Amino acid sequence: MDTLVIGIDIGGTGTKFGIVDRNGNVLFSSEMSTRGYDEVADYIETLYNNLLPFIEQIGGKGRIKGIGVGAPNGNYYTGTVEYAPNLPWKGIIPLAKMMQDKFGLPVVLTNDANAAAIGEMTYGCAKGMQDFIMITLGTGVGSGIVANGKLIYGHDGFAGELGHTVTIPDGRYHPGTGKKGSLESYASATGVKYTAIEFLDRDDTPSLLRDIPREQLDSKAVFDAAMQGDALAKEVFEFTGKVLGMALANAVMFSSPEAIVLFGGLTKAGELILKPTKEHMEANLIQIFQNKVKILVSHLKESDAAILGASALAWELQ
Amino acid sequence: MDTLVIGIDIGGTGTKFGIVDRNGNVLFSSEMSTRGYDEVADYIETLYNNLLPFIEQIGGKGRIKGIGVGAPNGNYYTGTVEYAPNLPWKGIIPLAKMMQDKFGLPVVLTNDANAAAIGEMTYGCAKGMQDFIMITLGTGVGSGIVANGKLIYGHDGFAGELGHTVTIPDGRYHPGTGKKGSLESYASATGVKYTAIEFLDRDDTPSLLRDIPREQLDSKAVFDAAMQGDALAKEVFEFTGKVLGMALANAVMFSSPEAIVLFGGLTKAGELILKPTKEHMEANLIQIFQNKVKILVSHLKESDAAILGASALAWELQ
Repeated sequence: MDTLVIGIDIGGTGTKFGIVDRNGNVLFSSEMSTRGYDEVADYIETLYNNLLPFIEQIGGKGRIKGIGVGAPNGNYYTGTVEYAPNLPWKGIIPLAKMMQDKFGLPVVLTNDANAAAIGEMTYGCAKGMQDFIMITLGTGVGSGIVANGKLIYGHDGFAGELGHTVTIPDGRYHPGTGKKGSLESYASATGVKYTAIEFLDRDDTPSLLRDIPREQLDSKAVFDAAMQGDALAKEVFEFTGKVLGMALANAVMFSSPEAIVLFGGLTKAGELILKPTKEHMEANLIQIFQNKVKILVSHLKESDAAILGASALAWELQ
Repeated sequence: MDTLVIGIDIGGTGTKFGIVDRNGNVLFSSEMSTRGYDEVADYIETLYNNLLPFIEQIGGKGRIKGIGVGAPNGNYYTGTVEYAPNLPWKGIIPLAKMMQDKFGLPVVLTNDANAAAIGEMTYGCAKGMQDFIMITLGTGVGSGIVANGKLIYGHDGFAGELGHTVTIPDGRYHPGTGKKGSLESYASATGVKYTAIEFLDRDDTPSLLRDIPREQLDSKAVFDAAMQGDALAKEVFEFTGKVLGMALANAVMFSSPEAIVLFGGLTKAGELILKPTKEHMEANLIQIFQNKVKILVSHLKESDAAILGASALAWELQ
């Protein structure tokens, strides 16, 4: 029987897990809450009990090569999760070691965007590419960079934080980091919301967004308004694409990827965001890089992508 | 007898070449003009005739593993020099192939900043590092990025153009690229000159630099004035370090290097430029990257560095 891997994606709210084959088929999957466990050990115990029935159904642990885990602030080298602001456990957690002891299987861990990059390289649209950049555009902005066929972890395991690079010096404040002008402050769902608010407060331009109570104004509302032809909402996406395009141009001039793969909620805005992003990327590239780099949108099913990404790590286990 | 390599550094004005041993000792070196040859073939012929006596002195071609060449816009994959604005030969030049045919030795080629990075990794202060970034601060700004122990060439061979990344959106115009706000527009010798002119034209602050005719005002003059305590000249370096530090922070959050190695004319300004660079780099890094990355200044002899960098490529030949 074919070898399989387990993928576990740990988010601030929920944890998704599943068993995956070589071709990226998710044979079994489920999810559970990440919250409500004061001790990491209790969380791992529950996770183990949830996975056990699946493991038995596929014929037992002997068929499983290993477990890949994607977690915020996950460190590939040490297998630890370090000071993750969105997780309930503080400090440095030796998560890979604890899981390995519980499951009796090798465990490899990295952050969620790195896991997504390896997922695209293993099962998705970056298959066969030696050089590409993965960008996840969700509540925040994550990234995973592949060069010479290998993910860049950097000397400390934390490489690929493109979301925190300064894109607009002295720009918008990021409450999570205390820094100003990061890509994430603009090119995330949160960023789109704040750009909309700024544009609404700028003057009295009529907009459908004025009918929405501020606490309900989110990137989805901006998208809906833009689809109804609202000029201000369209300008929000134009501006977001301008900032993202500039950041992508900088990334291209850094590592000269074959493609940039985009994933996450914001990509649902389609050409509304992709068109200005491409235009402004090209406009900021020097000549030798122009019209070479593909911008691709991940075609992995969103419900599976997190599990697939995490699972892909386990195939690289020796 | 030990194997040796040849290093050739092709600059817009002059070409440096030499024979180097495993430890980075330059056994023989010389230079010639890059200009005055309408045909590349004539240039290569002269280069060959200049190198031949050295090759004979070390015991002939049999002792030489290969030739490494650093050249502006040099492409590692194709061995070509493509549209180099500062070289006399236009279009795409198959330089590696032409040299290989003339010398009867394997030839490998890359751009000068990439060659410098491999030089530091082979003989210099990045020896043994798996992840570092080389930045050359001269008339322009070049860079070479090493991750997972390998130089990043990117999918097309042109990776590592950090000098052209947008650092100040809509900032200073770069006549060579037609783009605005690139790192090179600020953190190069040329950038320092233009910053000084901007600061002088801003108001009437007294400055030693006002005594210098504009056409003689260069980064050396700004340095000399700063060393004499000139406040405006010091502010020029402070500002240059601020822009460079921000760009370095972005590079760190991208590939998380163990060190950034600086090389070139601007580093002669010492703490005048290094202090603000370090401060602003740290200030723009998110917490997990702070106080981790060393900023090193290359200790390779400047007269040898270009030859060493180019020669180092040849050790990697199979």
